[in-house]
Parts: sequence; structure tokens; C-alpha cells
Amino acid sequence: MKPETTPADRTFTGGMWTFGRIIDRYATDGYGPNVPTLRAIELAAASGQLVGLDLNYPFDGDVTVEDVGKALTAHGLSAVNITPVIYDRGFRSGSFTSADTSARRRAVELAHESVDVAARLGARYVKFWPGQDGYDYPFQVDYADLRRHAIEGIRDVARNFPDVTFAIEYKLKEPRNRLFWSTAATSLLAIEQMGVDNVGLVVDFGHSLFAKENPAEVLTLAHSMGRLVDIELDDNYREWDDDLTAGSLHLVETLEFLHVVRQIGWDQPLKLDLFPYREDPADAVRESVATLRALEDKAARLPLPELRAAQSAHDAMAVQRIVRTALLG
Amino acid sequence: MKPETTPADRTFTGGMWTFGRIIDRYATDGYGPNVPTLRAIELAAASGQLVGLDLNYPFDGDVTVEDVGKALTAHGLSAVNITPVIYDRGFRSGSFTSADTSARRRAVELAHESVDVAARLGARYVKFWPGQDGYDYPFQVDYADLRRHAIEGIRDVARNFPDVTFAIEYKLKEPRNRLFWSTAATSLLAIEQMGVDNVGLVVDFGHSLFAKENPAEVLTLAHSMGRLVDIELDDNYREWDDDLTAGSLHLVETLEFLHVVRQIGWDQPLKLDLFPYREDPADAVRESVATLRALEDKAARLPLPELRAAQSAHDAMAVQRIVRTALLG
Amino acid sequence: MKPETTPADRTFTGGMWTFGRIIDRYATDGYGPNVPTLRAIELAAASGQLVGLDLNYPFDGDVTVEDVGKALTAHGLSAVNITPVIYDRGFRSGSFTSADTSARRRAVELAHESVDVAARLGARYVKFWPGQDGYDYPFQVDYADLRRHAIEGIRDVARNFPDVTFAIEYKLKEPRNRLFWSTAATSLLAIEQMGVDNVGLVVDFGHSLFAKENPAEVLTLAHSMGRLVDIELDDNYREWDDDLTAGSLHLVETLEFLHVVRQIGWDQPLKLDLFPYREDPADAVRESVATLRALEDKAARLPLPELRAAQSAHDAMAVQRIVRTALLG
Amino acid sequence: MKPETTPADRTFTGGMWTFGRIIDRYATDGYGPNVPTLRAIELAAASGQLVGLDLNYPFDGDVTVEDVGKALTAHGLSAVNITPVIYDRGFRSGSFTSADTSARRRAVELAHESVDVAARLGARYVKFWPGQDGYDYPFQVDYADLRRHAIEGIRDVARNFPDVTFAIEYKLKEPRNRLFWSTAATSLLAIEQMGVDNVGLVVDFGHSLFAKENPAEVLTLAHSMGRLVDIELDDNYREWDDDLTAGSLHLVETLEFLHVVRQIGWDQPLKLDLFPYREDPADAVRESVATLRALEDKAARLPLPELRAAQSAHDAMAVQRIVRTALLG
Repeated sequence: MKPETTPADRTFTGGMWTFGRIIDRYATDGYGPNVPTLRAIELAAASGQLVGLDLNYPFDGDVTVEDVGKALTAHGLSAVNITPVIYDRGFRSGSFTSADTSARRRAVELAHESVDVAARLGARYVKFWPGQDGYDYPFQVDYADLRRHAIEGIRDVARNFPDVTFAIEYKLKEPRNRLFWSTAATSLLAIEQMGVDNVGLVVDFGHSLFAKENPAEVLTLAHSMGRLVDIELDDNYREWDDDLTAGSLHLVETLEFLHVVRQIGWDQPLKLDLFPYREDPADAVRESVATLRALEDKAARLPLPELRAAQSAHDAMAVQRIVRTALLG
Repeated sequence: MKPETTPADRTFTGGMWTFGRIIDRYATDGYGPNVPTLRAIELAAASGQLVGLDLNYPFDGDVTVEDVGKALTAHGLSAVNITPVIYDRGFRSGSFTSADTSARRRAVELAHESVDVAARLGARYVKFWPGQDGYDYPFQVDYADLRRHAIEGIRDVARNFPDVTFAIEYKLKEPRNRLFWSTAATSLLAIEQMGVDNVGLVVDFGHSLFAKENPAEVLTLAHSMGRLVDIELDDNYREWDDDLTAGSLHLVETLEFLHVVRQIGWDQPLKLDLFPYREDPADAVRESVATLRALEDKAARLPLPELRAAQSAHDAMAVQRIVRTALLG
Repeated sequence: MKPETTPADRTFTGGMWTFGRIIDRYATDGYGPNVPTLRAIELAAASGQLVGLDLNYPFDGDVTVEDVGKALTAHGLSAVNITPVIYDRGFRSGSFTSADTSARRRAVELAHESVDVAARLGARYVKFWPGQDGYDYPFQVDYADLRRHAIEGIRDVARNFPDVTFAIEYKLKEPRNRLFWSTAATSLLAIEQMGVDNVGLVVDFGHSLFAKENPAEVLTLAHSMGRLVDIELDDNYREWDDDLTAGSLHLVETLEFLHVVRQIGWDQPLKLDLFPYREDPADAVRESVATLRALEDKAARLPLPELRAAQSAHDAMAVQRIVRTALLG
Repeated sequence: MKPETTPADRTFTGGMWTFGRIIDRYATDGYGPNVPTLRAIELAAASGQLVGLDLNYPFDGDVTVEDVGKALTAHGLSAVNITPVIYDRGFRSGSFTSADTSARRRAVELAHESVDVAARLGARYVKFWPGQDGYDYPFQVDYADLRRHAIEGIRDVARNFPDVTFAIEYKLKEPRNRLFWSTAATSLLAIEQMGVDNVGLVVDFGHSLFAKENPAEVLTLAHSMGRLVDIELDDNYREWDDDLTAGSLHLVETLEFLHVVRQIGWDQPLKLDLFPYREDPADAVRESVATLRALEDKAARLPLPELRAAQSAHDAMAVQRIVRTALLG
């Protein structure tokens, strides 16, 4: 096991979308003004909390990769990963699994471009979030076909770039009513069937709650299989991907998640995946970071021998006492 | 009890939004092209299935009430109701319950305008769907204040127009994580506390499923209290307001709902509330109408004496046999 | 508003069932040995945390009301309330709403007996938990009939004893798939329709989570209507009535609930509703009390003027900062 | 692909528990009288619908394997599979994953005995339903340990009997709040990691709904991996394992499931997993079988070329039209 990162050393990254204009089906004119790519980078930096960004690609308008690179450098931010936008109108019925071969081809092309952009910006990996890949109604698709396209599409990209790391971020649903890459286990099983070494998983705390998983359990699993590529934090009411500030609701589960983060020796930054519809994004980031730092500090002080002993006995009340004492004093 | 509408006489209305451009937080450029108000009316008429529309107000761009009135007439459609848009960016933190007094005032003004528009278009009622009225985080609001604003805001509008019918469409959540007007009972209780006669409820089948209610039960309740103003149909997976085509998932519950529709002697059209993100809206309407007509036909042929006898005995298996025979032959 | 109870003064009560034998459909031989009524009282007292008990009636075997009274006195416990067992095999298809008139009559008789037992033991109220009153399948019951029986059954008992306080404990479901007394608003609306002054509500934190409510919001509502009779605490995963130890999962929501408990000047004990299937009951009670005391202490130190200002502005991030500081330091 | 079973040929099996005494945590004296093993077999046969039984082992009291075998023969029933009772009080904190080595050892012993019983009764497989294997609270267990015990425990049994078929029936939760064998993908992934050929999956329609899966999709997956051992049918409200009669709620999803059953050439009987708490078990079985026969008949008449064309295009509305026509005429 790697030496543990101390809570004081912990750094954080964020999604560029957190600082952009958020829209939904009711506020179709957006919850705030339009925010161009370079302005979003500036806002991210101004939060004073982040060391890097998850960047959706393509960028808007005339912004070039060089422009983005310079803006990141100027603001002391790194590119964590590139996330090709395979979930907008152009892919409204799927990307790698679309019934439309031209959409599948465009997904591949965009993935290839993203590999290039990632290389030029020094990003650690390329992330697929196939939010339109799935279906809405019973009987709508042939499940074997859907599975084949989902697995082969990403496999082919990964084989083309054996030295590049790819990661899949699963989510139970939204915008499709059912996504193919729905849960950690579904995704890990499909990745195993893919038969490549350079595709792994992003475990998003909120997506895990939404999938009715225990986030700490699936984090352990993804790590044990050598498939953990990145970790994202946020919170929700377990029934939707609300993308609330980290630790705003599930303090105990977030503490447990951070405990596993420490146990597995995670030495990368933790990423925030927030959608502050009505809040100032920098405020949302600061609140999340403050909560996570406080919780990680408490995680660092958990009495590990006692905790392990209680866990070995599956002793819920002993564990509870330890956790309560750590959290509430 | 009023004489029952025969299934063959049943007519349908729809939401104008079904024919408009649908956007969400990922396909921020929309799932289809922009659709101006008058074009949406044209498309609604072209579906060949509807006799009237639920109209969001304000209309877009320079379109006047006269323009809309002429378009409706030209296409043989009526205005069912006016729904003031109190849930877009201007009301992103609430309408009647906003912390911002100017937002509350604008909500009232828009409500008043909507009353005028309804009168000019011959609409039966004004509908409030307060989708931004609620909160996202624990502790965010003082619940007594929120309740007071929610009830008094609509009460004051209703008192100003004692001869106008108003209706509230409840939903558990979205876009706020928690809405004040969340369930049928919450809304009926608040309406009773409002102390006015001209405010009632829209029961939306899908919202009811989403609220963990049984739609047929709350339809019975709203009717028994004299508060039922309109009925909307759609479907979902019980966990979100998916707005799928009516009867696409919950055939038994939709049949039961239509059975109650008949029992209470509902002689108004039934309204469709659909969001066909990736489908042709006219197709979605046609499929919904075809399914509802088929189900209402089956509802009309339920052997009522046997059904009532089985229900009096709470005999689940006898009821099941009757329903199965009606549905599957 | 009454003077606030200080956290140090707070006392706790519990359900007798917490100390009894717990059974479910798999461990039909129980999760532990049989525990007769008097032994359960002894165990409750031995936890050292409780001042009173919610007592299911009838008691087992030959145990008399006198026996129970003596045992309570001997152990320094009070009878908080009597809960007639209208949810066992004898009422498997409902109590006040049963299709079987003899079951309805037995429910009334048992309610009357419970009033007498409550008087003899000095209990503050009689609690109805109509867990078998509802239905399992669509079409199974006539909803108007069900509602009439549910409301009139309890109304008639309440009218017979105008000086006795009755309370209804709602739950969304279990053991029936759908209960009539399902949510706070459903129950408050039905109680209003009942037209009596001496029937109110028990707000159980876990039942409220399970009903997709915000517990602090419905506590505020029940209190504002003068219908709050008792408060119960526990925790769950929002999808079932897990009856886990209080504060084990929802620390923020429990803190907010306790904040409202203080704001409304609640000066009665707080009751625990736990089902420690695999844990020592006294441990579960101790852990719950320790967590609740810690949280109430934090609630007592919330900076109220700042909190109220943030709530007036619906400022989620300001509220978050206040809550985080209070909880995590 | 095997030749398809015609709907008229379809046979059904059932769980012995459907005919036994059902108990829950409220009706601790049972929803009906005690039903000894041999009487349950008699009742199952008397339903006139079943050709075989899923048998929980150990049997009650003095009943021997010979007694059971004779009773089955006398009533023309086969033993489908043996299900060792690794989920009662003796295993209240887990079977193969228990913290208690003696419980783990007893689970192994019971598994070995079940293999023997299966052989003597001619059962096709031994089924594990590890309903107590999991945890209730965050932090309660070390997830890597839990996983190791879960996988190795069953692997060791399977290796001891390479010619015997074993199957795991997954469920999201109940009685534990979280089960290790929670979803189809979780289980298939763990089975792959087990590295044995003779362990597969039971896909239970209701468990799949409860796990937020689409049953038809996971049935396709389990079959494609060569891991499908048996299929069970029932229904629920998607939020709990209600074990209602098959097809009582989800007609469309059940139709789709039966369509896949046909597509994969399933030539074994379909098993019913019902808990008729308040209903006559034979009635519940008859209603389920009648509904499944009606649906399978409709599935057999789906116009496959049109359906496949619509599915290839992911055309939800075309699919809907086909399904509606098949179901409702």
C-alpha cells in the first residue's frame, strides 16, 4: 500500500461544467448567464480551491486547444481529463450504441480527437460518460446488440491507443431512462469482457448512491480489480443525480468513503462533480472542500485497530460508537 | 353521478410543451430545432388527436394573445387553460415563495395577466405549477414561512378573481429537490387552509406515481372534496417525472385510473403531459391516445357488480381475475 | 412559545418492542429468544437510558395491567402510551377498515380496552398504528369506502372518550403494500375531516424519510396545526422502515429535526422506535441516545440569528456553512 | 438456438414457502396456521398448476428425505432444487460471510447436506439465497473481507461437487439492509471471479425490478454468459420484494421478460416465487399461471420481423405500437 496522503496535502479538482451555464427543461434560458470556456476556467481558478479541471470537449466557439492550455497554465490549473461530449443533441439517441452508424462513427472520431487533446494538455485520462447510451421504453432495444455496441465501441478506441488511459463514468439513468453503463458492477463486468488493460472506472459518490450501491463498497471493489481511474464527490437524496455539495447530506457515508480513499492509498486529487443550479459555483466548491477536509481529518483520526476489530466482528454498535465519537466528538 | 362519457366520445387535450423544443442539462442545444409558439399549435393540431391545449404564458417573441387565439381557432383547438411560466430563470429561486419580494410580485402579476389571457382565449382555468417553489438542502428555509408564502400567494390571486377557476399541479420534485406542492394530500390540505372555493387540483397520473401515491386513490380523494379541476396522463418508472407515453408501463394502474375517471362521471377531455425527448411528438400523442382508448374501452366493459362485490370483500384474487380477464381476454 | 428544554434535561422513552423478540419472514424462529412482557420492561429499564415505554396491548400470556403497572413502577418507568395491537393475525386484512365487520368491531373493542389500560397506567395517550389497513393490489378496494371506514372508525372511538388523547402513527407501507395512513399530510387531512379535537399525529422520523417527506418540515406542520402528540426517532435508508439507531445515517436531517423540536418548545421526552434485529437492544438504545444528545447539544448552539437570516434569504450555502461548523467544528 | 417451447407446453414450478405459514415482524403469530412440510407439498399439488417444487432444507420436525420424496412422487411433483436455509436465526449475521467461523462452517455443512438431498430427490440444482449475508450500517464490515468470504465460501462448495449445479439468487436487500449478492451484475462478476463452471444465477423477475434493473436485460445477460440456471416470476412495486402474483402490476415488463424467455429457448419450467400473506396460496398460483399463460401466448404472437426492425432502429414508438397491439388488441 502506498503511503497515505495526509488530509493537509489533499488537493481537489473540479468539473468545468460546475462553472458554466446550467440549463434544465424548465429554465431553458439557463439558471445564469452564458459562460464561455475560458471564463469558466477563470472562475474555477478564482474559487481558490482547485488544482485541475475535467474538461468537456469540444470547447465552445473558436476556442482552441492552445487557448485552453494557456488559460490553464495562466491560472495554475492542470487538465485532469478530457470528456468528449457524446451526450448532446448530436448523440441524442446514443453514441457508441446508437442505431445510427454515423453517430457511432462520430463518437469514435470525437474519442480520437479527445485522445489528442488530452495529450496536448497533459491530461491523465479520457473519460466517457455515455449518458445517452441506453433506452427509455421496454422492448425498445435488443439487449445483446446494445451490449455488443457498448463494449466494442470503447474497446476499439482503447485498442487504438494502448498507452492512453480511458475511464467510464457510470450512472443509473439520466438523460436516458436507463443507461447501459448503469452501476459499478455492470460496468466492471463489461470492462472485463472488453479484454483491454487501459479502460477503467470513475467512481462518483453520488452516482453510486443513486445506483443503490454503497459508495465505499464499490470503491473498494474497483480498486481491488485495478480498475479505479478517478474519484468524484458530490451528494444527492439517493433518487436522482442531484449533484449537491459534497457532504451536505450523507456525512457518515462520505466519511466512510474517505476512509476507503485513505486505505487504498489514493494519491491523486479528489474531483468535485457539482451542479450549483441556484448557487454561486465558487461557494459550492468552497463548501464542499471545507466539508471534505473536515471529514478527511476525522477519517485520519479514526482509531484503526479498534475499527478493524469491530469490523472483523461485524459489530455494528461498536463501529457506530467509533464513528460517532470521530464525527461528533 | 353524471351520466358516463362513453369511450367513443372521449376527447383529449395536450400540453403545448409536448410540441416545443425540449432541452435538458446535457442536450443544452435541445433535442430538436426551436419551435415557436404558433408552430407548436400547428403541430399539435396536425397530430389529429387533440381538441385543446394547455398553454404556457408568456408566449415567445412577438406573438400576441390574438395571434394565439386565431391560430387555435384556425386549427380547431380550444385553450384548455393558461399556465403562467413561474418556473424559468426569472423564478429560479421560487415564485410565490421566493425570498425575493420582487419575484413574488412578478409571480402575482403574471398570474393576473394569465387570468386575462385565459378570459380572452376562453380557457377553463389558470394552472399553477410552482416547480421552483421549495428548497434543495436541509435547513435552507423556514418551513412555516415557506408554507405561509405558498398558501397566501395563491389565495390572494384567487380572492382577486372569485369567478375564475385556479388549479395547482403538484409534483414531488424537479427542478427543486423538494417542492412545497409535493403530493395530492399536501396540496389538498394547503388548499383547505387557503379558505377559498376557486382553487383546486390537477391530478397528473405520472406525478402521482412519482409521489408514491396510487393515482386512482388520489383521484377519488380530490373528486370527493370537490377540488378536482383537471386530469393529466403520462407514465414513468415511479422514480422521476419521465413523461413517457400514457400506458407505456403501468397498464393496470392506468386502467384503474380510467375506471375511476368513469366512476366520477368526468366529462371533460383527458390531458396528455408528455415530453417526447427523442420521439416525434405526434407519434407520442397518437400512441398515448390509442392506448388510452383501448384501456377505456376495457374499463367500460368491466363487470361492475362483480367488481364491486370483490372490492367490498377486499378480495385481491377475485379482483385480479376480473382485471386480467378484462385486460388480456 | 414555551421555554426551551435544555439538552441536558432531555429524556427519552422507547417502544417495548425494541426489547422483545424480533421475527421476520425468514427468521421465523426469531432473531433471539422469546421475551415476555415483564422481562422486556426489565430490559428497557436496564438500558439505563429511558424514562418511559410505549406499550403494546394486549400483554402476553397471563400478565395483567396490574403486573405491568407494578413492573413499571418498580423500574422507575412511566407508561407513555398504549398501542393496541390492531396489526397481528387477527387483523391481517385490516382493523377499522377491514371488510369483515367482526374485525372492525374487535378493533373498536380493543381501542376501548386500551383507553382503560391507559387510564390505569397513567399513559398520556392511546396510539393507533393501523399497519394492516390499506391494500396490496390495484383495484382491491373501493377507495371511498376505505377512507370512510378509516376516518369514521377512529372518530367514533375518539368521540366516545372526548377527554382522552389519541394519536395516529402513519407509515407509507408495511406490512400492507399500501397503508391508508401513509403520510403526514394524508393523515392530517383525514384527521381534519374527522372533526374531533382529541386525535393527533405521531411524527416518526424514519417513517417520514420513508414517505419521501422532510421530517423537519412535517414536524413543523403537525405542530402548527396543533396536532402533534408525540415524536419518535430512528433512521433508515429512505426506502423502508429499517428502524436503525437514531442518527446512524441522517445526521444533518436529524440535527434539523432536533432544531425544530427545540423551536416548537417540545417539553416531552423523545421516543425511540428501534428494531435491533441483530444487536443488543440496550446497546442500540445507548448509541441512539448518545447520538441524539450530541446532536441536540449542537442544535442548541446553532447561531440562531445568523441561521434565521440565511433562511430568510433561502441561502443554501450560508446555511450549509452554519450547519457544517456546528456539526463538524 | 433451441426450438421454442410453445406456450401450451409451458409448465410451472413453485416455492414450497408459498404454501407454508407466512410470518412477519407484526403478525408474529403468522398470517395463517402452521403448515408442516408434507402438508405444504400436498397443498402445492392441490393447486393443480405445478409440476415441481423449490424445497427449503432442512425440513421440519421428523420429516425425512424419504418422506418428502414419497410425498412428491405421490402427488406427481418433482424436486426442482434444494435451498438450504442459511438465512434463519442460526445465520442471523450471515452464512458464508459470517464473522463467526462456526456459522461459516455450518453453512458449508448445510450446503453439503443439500447436495446429498438434491441427489436423492433428483433435484436439478442447489440454490443459495444468502439473505443474511451483507450488513446493515456503514463501516460495519470490511468490504474486501466480506467479498472474499462470499466468493470463497461458495467456490469451495462448488469445487467439492464439480458435477453438481449451484445457483445464487441475488436480492438487493432484506432481511439485511444490504446484501452482498445484490444485483445480477454484482453476482455475475463475483461468479466469474470464483473461477468455477458449476455456479450460476437464478434470475427472479421481482428481485430484478427491486434492484432497479430491467429484468429482460439481465435475463439476456445471464443467458449470454452461460450462467442462467433458473427463472422465477412474481411482481412488486419496484421498492421491495413484495412477491405479489406474477403479472399483477408489470404486464409490459413481464411480457418482455417472457419474450426473452422464448428467444433464449428456455425449455425448463418457470418458477413462481410468491408470498400470499393474506390470500389463498392456490388462488395466487392459479392467478399467476393464468396471467403468465395469457402473456406468453401474446409473446408467441409478436410479429418478430417487425419487432426486430423496430428494435434495430431503437424506434420506441414503433415498438410501442407492436406491443400495444399484442397486449390490448
